[in-house]
Amino acid sequence: MDAARLARQLDFIIEIDKLKHVFRQTLLMDASRLENDAEHSWHLAAMAVLLHEYAAEKGIDLPRVVAMVLVHDLVEIDAGDTYCYDEAGNRDKAEREQAAADRIFAILPPDQAAAVRGLWEEFEAMATPESRFAAALDRLQPLLHNFRTQGAQWRKHGVNAGQVLERNQRMHDGAPELWAYAEAMIRDAVARGYLAPDPRPE
Amino acid sequence: MDAARLARQLDFIIEIDKLKHVFRQTLLMDASRLENDAEHSWHLAAMAVLLHEYAAEKGIDLPRVVAMVLVHDLVEIDAGDTYCYDEAGNRDKAEREQAAADRIFAILPPDQAAAVRGLWEEFEAMATPESRFAAALDRLQPLLHNFRTQGAQWRKHGVNAGQVLERNQRMHDGAPELWAYAEAMIRDAVARGYLAPDPRPE
Repeated sequence: MDAARLARQLDFIIEIDKLKHVFRQTLLMDASRLENDAEHSWHLAAMAVLLHEYAAEKGIDLPRVVAMVLVHDLVEIDAGDTYCYDEAGNRDKAEREQAAADRIFAILPPDQAAAVRGLWEEFEAMATPESRFAAALDRLQPLLHNFRTQGAQWRKHGVNAGQVLERNQRMHDGAPELWAYAEAMIRDAVARGYLAPDPRPE
Repeated sequence: MDAARLARQLDFIIEIDKLKHVFRQTLLMDASRLENDAEHSWHLAAMAVLLHEYAAEKGIDLPRVVAMVLVHDLVEIDAGDTYCYDEAGNRDKAEREQAAADRIFAILPPDQAAAVRGLWEEFEAMATPESRFAAALDRLQPLLHNFRTQGAQWRKHGVNAGQVLERNQRMHDGAPELWAYAEAMIRDAVARGYLAPDPRPE
C-alpha cells in the first residue's frame, strides 16, 4: 500500500467536511432552517438513483451522474454558494470557483484530482447526457423544497415565475418528463400565491 | 409516463428530507455541532468513490456500494440514531428499524421499494463484499471525526480503546488496509490522551 497516497485521500476526505458548513438559499422541507451543500449533494445522489429512468437519453452512465452530483458543489467550500438569481454574485462566480478547484482538488493524488476535476467541469459544461441529467436534478430539488415551503424563499428574494421558468427550463434537455412536472408545479405555485406571476406581458 | 409512479417517487424524495434532522453522536471536524445522517451519508458516498481501491475484494460493484451508503440510514428517520456504544438502545434497535423500513420504503413504487429495502438489508447483514466495504467506511468516517476533534465524543461518553477496537475491528473484513490505518490512529489517540486506554489487562 502507498501510505502517502492514502494520506492525501484522507486529507481530502477531511477537507470536504467543510461542505457541511456551506449554506444554500433553500429551506428544508419543514422550513426550519437553510439546507447545506452536503445535504443537498446527498439528496441529489439519491434522486439520481431513483429517477434515472427519466433521463433524456437512455443508457446513461448512472454511476458517473452520482459521482458528479457528490462532488459538484465542492468548490463552494472556498467560493461560497451563489444564489442563482443573484446577478452580481454570478458575475465573478466562475473565477472564484476556478481558484477553489485549483486548491481543493489538488489535495487528492494526481489521478483522482484530475478525475474529480473532470467530473466538476463536465457538470458545469452541461455538454453530456450525464451532466444534463445531473443539472436537471440540481434544479428540480430546490423547486420541490420551494413548493413544499409555500415559496418562502421565492417571496423573500422577490423572485417571479418568469425568472423561475427561465432559470429551470434547461431541465428539459436533461429530463423532459421531470421538466413537464416542474413546469406544472411552478404554474401551480403561482395559482396558490407561493410565487409572484411573471410581470411581463404574455 | 406513469404519473402515479413519479408521484410516489417524489413523495419518497420529499419524505427522506427528514434525514437532515436525524443527528448522530459525531461532531463535525471543527467540533462546532453534531453531524446529521444526510451529511454522513454524503460523506460515505464520496469516500466509497475515492477509496474503493482498498476494498478487501477486487472487482467490487462500486455503484451498489454507493447506492447502499446513500440509503443505509433512512430507517433512522423513524427509529432515530442509536449510538454504537449504547447497549440499551441497541437491544430494540432491530425491531424499531424493521418497522421504519416497512413504512418508509413502501412510499416508493413496489419495484424500487424492494430494491432499496434489499440494499438496506444487504448493508445490515454484512454478508457481501460490497456491504463489508460499506460497513468499513461507516466505521472509518466517525473515527476520523473523533480523532480530528481530539476524542471529544469518546470522552463525553466515557468510551475506552478496548471498546473502540472491538467495535471497529470488523473493518478488517471490508477494507484491511483502512483497518490497519484506523488501528494505528486509535492507538495514537490513546497516546495523545484523546481516548482512555483499555482498562483490561493486556
